[in-house]
Amino acid sequence: MDSFSLFDCVSPLDFRYYGGNAKLLDALSPYVSEKARVRHEARVEAALVRVLARRGLCPPEAAQAIERACEEVTPEEVAEEERRIHHNVRALVNAIRARVPEEHRRFVHWTLTSFDVIDTAMAARFKRMTREVVIPYLLDLERELVAISEREADTLQMGRTHGQHAVPITFGFAMAEHVARLGERIELLDDAAGCMRGKISGAVGAYNASSLFTDDPESLEREVLAELDLEPASHSTQIVIAEPMVDLIHVLTSCLGVMANLADDMRHLQRSEIAEVGEAFEKDQVGSSTMPHKRNPWNFENVKAFFKAFAPRMTTMYLDQLSEHQRDLTNSATNRFLPEVVVAVVACAERLTRIMGRLVVDKAAMERNLEMSGRMVLAEPLYIVLAGLGHPDAHEAVRRLTLESEQSGEPPAALMERSDELRPYVERMTDEQRTVLGDYRRYTGIAAEKARKVCAEWRERLNLD
Amino acid sequence: MDSFSLFDCVSPLDFRYYGGNAKLLDALSPYVSEKARVRHEARVEAALVRVLARRGLCPPEAAQAIERACEEVTPEEVAEEERRIHHNVRALVNAIRARVPEEHRRFVHWTLTSFDVIDTAMAARFKRMTREVVIPYLLDLERELVAISEREADTLQMGRTHGQHAVPITFGFAMAEHVARLGERIELLDDAAGCMRGKISGAVGAYNASSLFTDDPESLEREVLAELDLEPASHSTQIVIAEPMVDLIHVLTSCLGVMANLADDMRHLQRSEIAEVGEAFEKDQVGSSTMPHKRNPWNFENVKAFFKAFAPRMTTMYLDQLSEHQRDLTNSATNRFLPEVVVAVVACAERLTRIMGRLVVDKAAMERNLEMSGRMVLAEPLYIVLAGLGHPDAHEAVRRLTLESEQSGEPPAALMERSDELRPYVERMTDEQRTVLGDYRRYTGIAAEKARKVCAEWRERLNLD
Amino acid sequence: MDSFSLFDCVSPLDFRYYGGNAKLLDALSPYVSEKARVRHEARVEAALVRVLARRGLCPPEAAQAIERACEEVTPEEVAEEERRIHHNVRALVNAIRARVPEEHRRFVHWTLTSFDVIDTAMAARFKRMTREVVIPYLLDLERELVAISEREADTLQMGRTHGQHAVPITFGFAMAEHVARLGERIELLDDAAGCMRGKISGAVGAYNASSLFTDDPESLEREVLAELDLEPASHSTQIVIAEPMVDLIHVLTSCLGVMANLADDMRHLQRSEIAEVGEAFEKDQVGSSTMPHKRNPWNFENVKAFFKAFAPRMTTMYLDQLSEHQRDLTNSATNRFLPEVVVAVVACAERLTRIMGRLVVDKAAMERNLEMSGRMVLAEPLYIVLAGLGHPDAHEAVRRLTLESEQSGEPPAALMERSDELRPYVERMTDEQRTVLGDYRRYTGIAAEKARKVCAEWRERLNLD
Amino acid sequence: MDSFSLFDCVSPLDFRYYGGNAKLLDALSPYVSEKARVRHEARVEAALVRVLARRGLCPPEAAQAIERACEEVTPEEVAEEERRIHHNVRALVNAIRARVPEEHRRFVHWTLTSFDVIDTAMAARFKRMTREVVIPYLLDLERELVAISEREADTLQMGRTHGQHAVPITFGFAMAEHVARLGERIELLDDAAGCMRGKISGAVGAYNASSLFTDDPESLEREVLAELDLEPASHSTQIVIAEPMVDLIHVLTSCLGVMANLADDMRHLQRSEIAEVGEAFEKDQVGSSTMPHKRNPWNFENVKAFFKAFAPRMTTMYLDQLSEHQRDLTNSATNRFLPEVVVAVVACAERLTRIMGRLVVDKAAMERNLEMSGRMVLAEPLYIVLAGLGHPDAHEAVRRLTLESEQSGEPPAALMERSDELRPYVERMTDEQRTVLGDYRRYTGIAAEKARKVCAEWRERLNLD
Repeated sequence: MDSFSLFDCVSPLDFRYYGGNAKLLDALSPYVSEKARVRHEARVEAALVRVLARRGLCPPEAAQAIERACEEVTPEEVAEEERRIHHNVRALVNAIRARVPEEHRRFVHWTLTSFDVIDTAMAARFKRMTREVVIPYLLDLERELVAISEREADTLQMGRTHGQHAVPITFGFAMAEHVARLGERIELLDDAAGCMRGKISGAVGAYNASSLFTDDPESLEREVLAELDLEPASHSTQIVIAEPMVDLIHVLTSCLGVMANLADDMRHLQRSEIAEVGEAFEKDQVGSSTMPHKRNPWNFENVKAFFKAFAPRMTTMYLDQLSEHQRDLTNSATNRFLPEVVVAVVACAERLTRIMGRLVVDKAAMERNLEMSGRMVLAEPLYIVLAGLGHPDAHEAVRRLTLESEQSGEPPAALMERSDELRPYVERMTDEQRTVLGDYRRYTGIAAEKARKVCAEWRERLNLD
Repeated sequence: MDSFSLFDCVSPLDFRYYGGNAKLLDALSPYVSEKARVRHEARVEAALVRVLARRGLCPPEAAQAIERACEEVTPEEVAEEERRIHHNVRALVNAIRARVPEEHRRFVHWTLTSFDVIDTAMAARFKRMTREVVIPYLLDLERELVAISEREADTLQMGRTHGQHAVPITFGFAMAEHVARLGERIELLDDAAGCMRGKISGAVGAYNASSLFTDDPESLEREVLAELDLEPASHSTQIVIAEPMVDLIHVLTSCLGVMANLADDMRHLQRSEIAEVGEAFEKDQVGSSTMPHKRNPWNFENVKAFFKAFAPRMTTMYLDQLSEHQRDLTNSATNRFLPEVVVAVVACAERLTRIMGRLVVDKAAMERNLEMSGRMVLAEPLYIVLAGLGHPDAHEAVRRLTLESEQSGEPPAALMERSDELRPYVERMTDEQRTVLGDYRRYTGIAAEKARKVCAEWRERLNLD
Repeated sequence: MDSFSLFDCVSPLDFRYYGGNAKLLDALSPYVSEKARVRHEARVEAALVRVLARRGLCPPEAAQAIERACEEVTPEEVAEEERRIHHNVRALVNAIRARVPEEHRRFVHWTLTSFDVIDTAMAARFKRMTREVVIPYLLDLERELVAISEREADTLQMGRTHGQHAVPITFGFAMAEHVARLGERIELLDDAAGCMRGKISGAVGAYNASSLFTDDPESLEREVLAELDLEPASHSTQIVIAEPMVDLIHVLTSCLGVMANLADDMRHLQRSEIAEVGEAFEKDQVGSSTMPHKRNPWNFENVKAFFKAFAPRMTTMYLDQLSEHQRDLTNSATNRFLPEVVVAVVACAERLTRIMGRLVVDKAAMERNLEMSGRMVLAEPLYIVLAGLGHPDAHEAVRRLTLESEQSGEPPAALMERSDELRPYVERMTDEQRTVLGDYRRYTGIAAEKARKVCAEWRERLNLD
Repeated sequence: MDSFSLFDCVSPLDFRYYGGNAKLLDALSPYVSEKARVRHEARVEAALVRVLARRGLCPPEAAQAIERACEEVTPEEVAEEERRIHHNVRALVNAIRARVPEEHRRFVHWTLTSFDVIDTAMAARFKRMTREVVIPYLLDLERELVAISEREADTLQMGRTHGQHAVPITFGFAMAEHVARLGERIELLDDAAGCMRGKISGAVGAYNASSLFTDDPESLEREVLAELDLEPASHSTQIVIAEPMVDLIHVLTSCLGVMANLADDMRHLQRSEIAEVGEAFEKDQVGSSTMPHKRNPWNFENVKAFFKAFAPRMTTMYLDQLSEHQRDLTNSATNRFLPEVVVAVVACAERLTRIMGRLVVDKAAMERNLEMSGRMVLAEPLYIVLAGLGHPDAHEAVRRLTLESEQSGEPPAALMERSDELRPYVERMTDEQRTVLGDYRRYTGIAAEKARKVCAEWRERLNLD
């Protein structure tokens, strides 16, 4: 074990995306690592003795000694003891006890069951981690998106549905979609973190053990959990009911979905034929091993890959809602994988923030692409205006006009002006309507305004400034 | 098509669980069927003209004629038109137009894009369906669970972890877990339904078309959606952003998880060797084709099967978060499957309510099973009390006592009383502690009280009475 | 129930993709419908009595009467009986018995357990359906792909990696990928169908019942199954072991993956900016409700959607590998959904065959796109040739040359010819090498040849002609 | 990075199940670790120059120098270079080049694209790993299962369906199910490993680069791959087509399903009320932190947990079948996770082998459980025999007899003998039939024989001895 290195790892998170990334390792390791698990579990043991002492159920000096031991116990000590006795929480307890004078040892873990410690520590860990790491990283990305959306609020871009040119928007409007979606996810994430719950209710959740020493074991539970900024679950068995964690992992997974959609949009906009956005190269970076000229959207592709790797794992969460009677242990190993989802979300957020921060927007390319279909996009407003002005079958009229324009090469507006059939409607058009019908670049609805509005709203809701 | 029958269907929902079940067909068909889709989409078209008329953008008589057509248009008409033109919303529009005098036709669908109709109708349909069908069915189940939990609040049962006897609880306490979990799901479901959002923002979400006729297209959108008891999405492209529906389907899926856990618990309690609960047979019901004496938990197995069939589908929802640019259509066919999840939840709720309603609880069997391990379960309180009273290594002391009791057949309490080593602690025990240590049936913590408390809480939160 | 119509269905397969499609309904309903299930189960009952009669265990006239009843029994009769007795196979048995003279009734279902019938019928159904419907539909698609690949074997197209222009290929080569992948899937599908297994081994798989009347119950089993073109499973409990079906559904699911990749490629090639392929419009078809000029790749999008809807369901198959002891029934309802995957595969194959059959390939667009990056793609051969001729760091040399070419606008080849540093290598190039370096259109490797070779191979392996 | 330790890892595979397990680390790290990836990729580079030298395309001394460098290059060197240039294969190439005299450097990676190396190395790695580690571990488990099945071939056990007592089997027969299922998986795994494919076909799969120097680039490819015990894929683009790996991962996943079913069966047989099997405790092992007497099936629960964690990941494989055009990179990060599935399978196999090796079978408990329902299980043979002997409605007759027996407490056989209605049939029963009807312990069909037969078959097919 002594020689274990990064390169012995099997998990790409460990050898590459988290363990191999100093910044993320630094930010996440206090929460997601195995040593973080030990640390958080020890904190639960410490919280217990603090409360026991406060209630006069254990001497203050015992509590102090145990608290100190809880701070000092190392994962190595726990691992060594676990190899001996094959029980992880008992190993932690023994390792703490070994650091405590014999007369105080009996208060370590007193009345607790293993999962009082494990599940409570897990809840505390995920609550803090979500609020102290995940949300800040997502807010960084949100800030970047808001900045781009506001900066490009008026930048014309062709709107695309089915990969086909539809009607014009602005690039800022397109980005505002991601601002709104990510903003909502962040708020929900904070809610879900606030719903994390702990338990100090014993082996089957009925407070059998703690009832032996106190008349109100639920108040003891509340007090211990409050030390850890948690509330008790509405119900617990040997474990906290599964749903608060299921809900949190759902929101995290859906964050990956929002980021993957952003990534997909960006990588398609980088296609050679579209080329509306790009990424500034870093010095010394190599594009491809044999094609030095290629500029691949590999960062966006990486985000998509993470999404593909993690979205299906949500099914495991639903499977873990099922635990027989007062629990079976088939969710124990699965729970150990949960911090990986957090790493995935943070890794994607960090990467996207970095890449979006150096996103190059090629307005000329956007104009060029828009122009390609400019004439044809006027079909829609033409239809709307004709119908609004009383044409009984505007849809069919425009379809014919469009085909004619396609064949003759003349703009639909010109054909319209010349058409005897359409003249009565043309004469009743407003100036604004004529302006739009004559210039497809004006047919952007309230795209720019909406971009600014969405950004302003999320600046405020998330206190982005 | 004329001869299409139940037995031609490929979906077991259609030929069996919903279509083959008169009660569910009746309750759900106004929401989940293809004709329900048409009906809800027509309502969006009707809402539009009502608002147009109110704003003076279309004559009242046009609006009235169109509203009437929207009420009367049939799915058969739409299907026939779609076979001709291969576009489902345009087919609906044409079918409505065909029922409207020529001079009013132009106001049908005016300024809308297909997905203004489809997504708004979908949101309205799921919002109503969740509140008017799904939640009531879940509340019926919740009522049944509360009734059992309260009725059996004091019924002794062995608590089980890992399928092993742990320490005693009451059956009402065990049921209270399901009360709490289902209760929370119901509340979240109502929240998620309230988050359904619509859109009247046109082909790419920038209100390009509606801006041609109004200065504040967002207010027009709000007004149309209000007719359908909806609010606008925080952002839309051609479609409503995916997340509100993703969140709702998540909660529905997690309801299946809660119900499957209940089902799993019940079917294991029905095992021949445990036999603590059973299901009253219906007259004429046959247990198995060759073993007429068998009483299979097939209803609970069915609920588990639905969970297994539907939980993985959540992944499709995450995949549908990705839609290129202002949308691609790769979520169109997938969305058509969404009502199936609702059918699954309602079918499971209906079945469980029915079965739990005739659940037979065999208290004698519960007592017998408890007795099997009664003596041994006292190990835990013994440990707790010894540790609390100052024994330095109570865990080890109890382990030895337990082995001795296993070998000699004597109750641990008796061995304890005789033990020189333990005497100092025994002497300092409270009466309550001695009582529990002498009778494992007393070692139930606050199980009964907690069962009643949980039930009382959910009665109130959900207005169950 | 009498009034049940297509529009009451909740499953989009029933009301739209299969039930609403006369061609598919016709092809698939003998296999996937509920009535097909009844028909196949009755065939198992018939096979049993044929063998019993042959072995002298039942009178020939009894066997004949029962066989006739098995052919004539209707799903309506079975459904009605099931509503009465709540057991589906016993209902089938009763419905058959009701059509048989009283003295022969006892031989119906004799020694069988329900799942002898259900699982054997399922295996027979999936084996025949795979070979008689699924594979023929996939072969139709394969033929279409081969035709395109051969026809376009020499059609120049830019190769794309990461959505970026890489080096040239031919469109026929690109299509050959799909030919090879689909070809392999078809072969595997046939293998997997051949691995379907049945069972006539009774309630727990130990031939308890049949052993009462025969010394070699395994030979009886083999004989009955042979009537249905099946072999016995290597082991069975109450059910056939799960894996043969799990493997078959895996191959079916992976067919969706192959088709979805084809669909994705096609829809991206249809992007407005790329526009290399298109789909001929059908008469009267409407492109979009408000943009009559749009030509959406909605058929390809539909295939992608089916893939997204069905790929996650594979997880359910793995969950169904778990059945407690000699089986629990939690795979019963899930199994009823299995024919849906078949419908999905056939629907996608049929759609793709139709659309690929009218695929319009725009060679001019392919040339135009190729030309965009023509100059730059020469970087790769330049690097290869320079390295091959001894340049110590060709990668770096080409990187610099490429940047220079990007800035100056001159072709890399021209810059190379003028470079003092590169001259020694240039002088030693072969004619072939110089030709390629001077004309990126020649840099297609063996693309055309490979396309023809792949097609020839699959023509032969699958007997396509 | 220097201080990275096991306890910094986020993946439970790394800190616990693989990295924290000396035996598995030893067996798997040559294949699954990051350093194993580098090693295998370097081998591809070495294979290339060996073939180049053999064909006279590069000097033998260059090939030797490069081969040596490929053996000696360290993951640390590659990682350091990658941090500089942000491209992993180019980093490997540079690290190899740095160890080669300048004049030979140009032959390193010559004509290759990154994924010629990555995908070929991946295929070689998975082929060897499957055959050299995974299959041997599964064979160890298979041997253990065969040993138990043969040893317990005659051990009576109650057969269970739906968790209900059905008819008797033997425990060896029950185990034979797992023997057969695992045996089949092992054979399929070997087939799937044999289908792994590599590629040396360049940037888009058309051999563009290698064609510059050889007329038959496919033969060059075959020769390089043969060095690595691989064949070329039927088609490749920048990458090997996805399906061979998808198929392999499917088989691996289905192995988890088979093992999880075994684990589930064992843990239910360990339930306190059933208690038919147990696990011998290890010295010093602690059962639970507060209940020292509990003997939890946590090893079986762990296997179930791994199954739940990994089965849903198969969906990622299907998603990775989709790669746009000649590939996008969205499968790059996902592929890095693939070795984790192998770790999961091996960890489960190793654990189960260990636990099954010390499985304690409590024959007395099996007898006791059987006896519980013994009388009632005779209903089935009674029905079969009565029907076989001509009773027109044996099912109904037995149902009545069963109810009577339940109420009166008399054995069905005794009631039968006394029944006037049944007498004519009773008189015609064979001795064998009477024996079985009088002793439910005889009603085991061919369970024992089948157990031995299945074991003999798999001993032979897998060369287990």
